[in-house]
Amino acid sequence: MTAYSIVFVGAKPFMNYVTGVVMQFDQHSASEVTVKARGKFISRAVDVAEVATKRFLQNKVKVDDIQIASEGFTNPEGKQVRVSTITIKLKKIEGQQTLQ
Amino acid sequence: MTAYSIVFVGAKPFMNYVTGVVMQFDQHSASEVTVKARGKFISRAVDVAEVATKRFLQNKVKVDDIQIASEGFTNPEGKQVRVSTITIKLKKIEGQQTLQ
Repeated sequence: MTAYSIVFVGAKPFMNYVTGVVMQFDQHSASEVTVKARGKFISRAVDVAEVATKRFLQNKVKVDDIQIASEGFTNPEGKQVRVSTITIKLKKIEGQQTLQ
Repeated sequence: MTAYSIVFVGAKPFMNYVTGVVMQFDQHSASEVTVKARGKFISRAVDVAEVATKRFLQNKVKVDDIQIASEGFTNPEGKQVRVSTITIKLKKIEGQQTLQ
């Protein structure tokens, strides 16, 4: 069991990703979970991070760091395209008991 | 003329927002520009920030800080809904001449 994991957000049902994040913290004792997405799924990754930290893991987990970047790749038509990415690092709040 | 401005990203053509950001820095001498968006436009706000900083203002402007949050409001059907928001702070790189 690792203490560090990544959830890639894509086209699956929204709650799959939220549950994935919550389970890493609650059942797998992760101290950090990274939520990643590309292109149009970036909005969804932000929703996953917000719902996980504000509704399910309130006062237990916080957004620690957010990075954005660009990736270039060649699409099936042979054209060079650019896509944005987001990396949202969620972290267990130390001494959470005092906050509740 | 202010040295601080906000670009709200929505449904207008993509380049409108990029041009808005670039003009604030280049023509209005802003030292900081904040790119904001809600809901599905979050992905677009990230694209705007990436294209502005990596293509048009390379080595001149960097992403300084990114915040995500949630806003609650009542929709036209009277239901309480939650929407995610993003705030991307872009900042002029000091001593940019040495970087080029």
